[in-house]
Amino acid sequence: MEFSAGQIADLLQGKVIGNADVKVNTVSKIEEGKPGSLAFLANPKYTKYIYDTKADIVLVNKDFIPEKKISATLIKVDDAYKAFASLLEIYQQYKNNKTGISESAFMEKTATAGKNTYIGAGVYIGEHTHIADNCKIYPNTYIGDNVKIGEGTVIFSGVNIYSETVIGENCILHSGVVVGSDGFGFAPQNSAEFKKIPQIGNVIIEDRAEIGANTSIDRATIGSTVIRKGVKLDNLVQIAHNVEIGENTVIASQTGVSGSTKIGKNCMIGGQVGFAGHLTIGDNVRIGAQSGVHKDLPDNVIVQGTPVTGYREWYRIAAVLQKLPEIYRKIQKI
Amino acid sequence: MEFSAGQIADLLQGKVIGNADVKVNTVSKIEEGKPGSLAFLANPKYTKYIYDTKADIVLVNKDFIPEKKISATLIKVDDAYKAFASLLEIYQQYKNNKTGISESAFMEKTATAGKNTYIGAGVYIGEHTHIADNCKIYPNTYIGDNVKIGEGTVIFSGVNIYSETVIGENCILHSGVVVGSDGFGFAPQNSAEFKKIPQIGNVIIEDRAEIGANTSIDRATIGSTVIRKGVKLDNLVQIAHNVEIGENTVIASQTGVSGSTKIGKNCMIGGQVGFAGHLTIGDNVRIGAQSGVHKDLPDNVIVQGTPVTGYREWYRIAAVLQKLPEIYRKIQKI
Amino acid sequence: MEFSAGQIADLLQGKVIGNADVKVNTVSKIEEGKPGSLAFLANPKYTKYIYDTKADIVLVNKDFIPEKKISATLIKVDDAYKAFASLLEIYQQYKNNKTGISESAFMEKTATAGKNTYIGAGVYIGEHTHIADNCKIYPNTYIGDNVKIGEGTVIFSGVNIYSETVIGENCILHSGVVVGSDGFGFAPQNSAEFKKIPQIGNVIIEDRAEIGANTSIDRATIGSTVIRKGVKLDNLVQIAHNVEIGENTVIASQTGVSGSTKIGKNCMIGGQVGFAGHLTIGDNVRIGAQSGVHKDLPDNVIVQGTPVTGYREWYRIAAVLQKLPEIYRKIQKI
Repeated sequence: MEFSAGQIADLLQGKVIGNADVKVNTVSKIEEGKPGSLAFLANPKYTKYIYDTKADIVLVNKDFIPEKKISATLIKVDDAYKAFASLLEIYQQYKNNKTGISESAFMEKTATAGKNTYIGAGVYIGEHTHIADNCKIYPNTYIGDNVKIGEGTVIFSGVNIYSETVIGENCILHSGVVVGSDGFGFAPQNSAEFKKIPQIGNVIIEDRAEIGANTSIDRATIGSTVIRKGVKLDNLVQIAHNVEIGENTVIASQTGVSGSTKIGKNCMIGGQVGFAGHLTIGDNVRIGAQSGVHKDLPDNVIVQGTPVTGYREWYRIAAVLQKLPEIYRKIQKI
Repeated sequence: MEFSAGQIADLLQGKVIGNADVKVNTVSKIEEGKPGSLAFLANPKYTKYIYDTKADIVLVNKDFIPEKKISATLIKVDDAYKAFASLLEIYQQYKNNKTGISESAFMEKTATAGKNTYIGAGVYIGEHTHIADNCKIYPNTYIGDNVKIGEGTVIFSGVNIYSETVIGENCILHSGVVVGSDGFGFAPQNSAEFKKIPQIGNVIIEDRAEIGANTSIDRATIGSTVIRKGVKLDNLVQIAHNVEIGENTVIASQTGVSGSTKIGKNCMIGGQVGFAGHLTIGDNVRIGAQSGVHKDLPDNVIVQGTPVTGYREWYRIAAVLQKLPEIYRKIQKI
Repeated sequence: MEFSAGQIADLLQGKVIGNADVKVNTVSKIEEGKPGSLAFLANPKYTKYIYDTKADIVLVNKDFIPEKKISATLIKVDDAYKAFASLLEIYQQYKNNKTGISESAFMEKTATAGKNTYIGAGVYIGEHTHIADNCKIYPNTYIGDNVKIGEGTVIFSGVNIYSETVIGENCILHSGVVVGSDGFGFAPQNSAEFKKIPQIGNVIIEDRAEIGANTSIDRATIGSTVIRKGVKLDNLVQIAHNVEIGENTVIASQTGVSGSTKIGKNCMIGGQVGFAGHLTIGDNVRIGAQSGVHKDLPDNVIVQGTPVTGYREWYRIAAVLQKLPEIYRKIQKI
């Protein structure tokens, strides 16, 4: 996809200074500007780069006045940073422009799909499942029976959604995500072998959640595992049965949340954190990477470490940890 | 799927008190009872909830005598807890009732499938592979050449099983599982580049094992990676080449076992644990979450921490860890 | 696949001692030798096993002279270890001998594939994507628009490759790998809800890289996430947006690298390690399993622990850690 400086200026209601016919097909940072790309200049600290950049188009603020000759075509806009951001959004939407239902998709007879919904090749859609309007279901994704997918939701390729799952509007699920697999529930028996506890609940994912690649979210034993509005889960995250993640909480990669733990809203949780089961974590909690959370946490705390503690305490502990051999030598002399 | 109180009572050989025609389509806890659901009352502590529950049907012990009016229909059974558990099992089996071989599945000419086996749309089955009777292979799963799948095994959607894998009877593999990928084996060379060591062994999964979503089990370099009878692996677990997991051992999510380590039977291993390679772990061992296991462990120990130690020692260490800054201040004064 | 001793001797330019017609279909270690298998004897320490081995064929060095009767057929070669290794490679290539484009694959009209390339059932290949000669794309893999796959690359089943990805020659991607999913980038807003930052870069994987099962590699926000020549990533590894992994670096399972971190070449990184974002790690660095890397590291260091420190220091710290309760008791007495 190529765009000319003229087309981009029209889109952004900007003014072209230079060759309006020059075309770009990607974007770059001004300091790394490559031929065929568009860059932007917003922070004056980077002004020096504009005179040598190889980018063919640069978005600049309308009050920008060059001190010497610039080979790139300039587009003057009200706010170069905002204009660049909105250009990226337009580009991303443009790329994600698939439509129609592939003849190579397999929909059960009772499955239904709304208007303008894309269903790619190799997609399977189960009995009584409904995909709302303006959704995009990429190839080779599996959606089981009795599932509901809300308007505008995008599900990339190779996602697996078990039966009874409910997904809200404008969500994004990345490739390899599994939603609704059985919770890890087994009852001890007289023999040493465990007996499976039926997992008959479901998963509910509310509006505007985004779920990263290869993340798994188990269905509830009874009731629902719930991912609230605006939650963002990174890649390879584990959400166990009956967990609830509060609104707008963000969880980084490879973190695991054990069964029945409830995490509040607006939390920020680092990567590779582990949560024990049956915990209650408050709102606005921040947890550092690789922490081990074994106890409830109140609202508004910032914690880190294993076992988890206040992050200031943890930094002090971590500093002394390095001096342990020295401490031990001193102790032995006493 | 809706069931009336009358139908459920017949199934459980129970007695209806109230309206036998009321229908339910899900279950709930008595304290959260929702319209259209069935709950149970076994623990007297919860008796108070039965008078206000919105559940439409409640299973109760046959000796239960209400103290005031109850709006729900009751079903009296010998043991309400056991009746509820058996109902869940019936429901789960009922849901998992797919049959037939889809015309959209792709079976190589030498592949064979037994009686009553379901093979969904988009499934690929390789040369000389045999799927036994009463199996369920959900859509978009890949099963390579020379694989054997035992009777009654359920493989959910989007599973990838490499060639030569052997899977026993009544196993469950959840979506996104990978079985039989190459072990991580590379030989250093004179150049800095590593050379791949061919991985020509296989994976054997014995009867009644359950493997969680997005878990990966590598094939052996030579010989077999073995998952014994009754093993339960949670989601996102890593099993490296030539590992052996003993009978009925249970491993929680995101744990990783390095190459050639043997874990005994009846072990319980927490989440996010890491095992070094070439270890021997005894039977009945319990390992706390996030532990780092760098050495062999005998039978019957309970351990935790990094490096792993007795769990009582670990709790003491963890407690003193919090006091390290205080200890350091004292030491400096001496 | 069965091979006779005569066929194998021809392949290896060796000499048969015994029955040239005996056939094998697998390999085993000489000390575990099973009927129907081939073993080798290179290390004199293992000579004792050759007299009782149940393996039907044993490769031996040409100067080997048995001290008593051996039931196995021997094949004498110049170097038994090298001959065995080359046999494994031949066997692995032989197994991976799929060809042709399946009628059940779905290629968009502008997609192209080179000579001798295998494209399995249920594969999807997007617009303007080119697969070079001698590639193997296993069933149910998804390859998006504008992707380039270099000559001789093998992509196993159920892999998901997003648009604009560039993969070099002779790479191997295992099942469940996700390449090019959106980076985890969100901007805070006045409301508590985060706003998605468009991720419009791509992923570049250079020649001879191998990527393990269920590993995920995010696309760059702008520019490229880069996996250099000869890199080996194990299973369930997380590579975030704009990360760069240097040539021939090897990363074990379940390790996570946060956004914009650059790792040098020829590094060896253990399992379950976590890297913070925006770090620069030198060349030839070795990092122990489960470490937490929160700072830049120079070339040639060997480090371990959380927070990461020199590995010798870490072993000393870990040793004293076990004595913390004892230290605390002593301190309290002072």
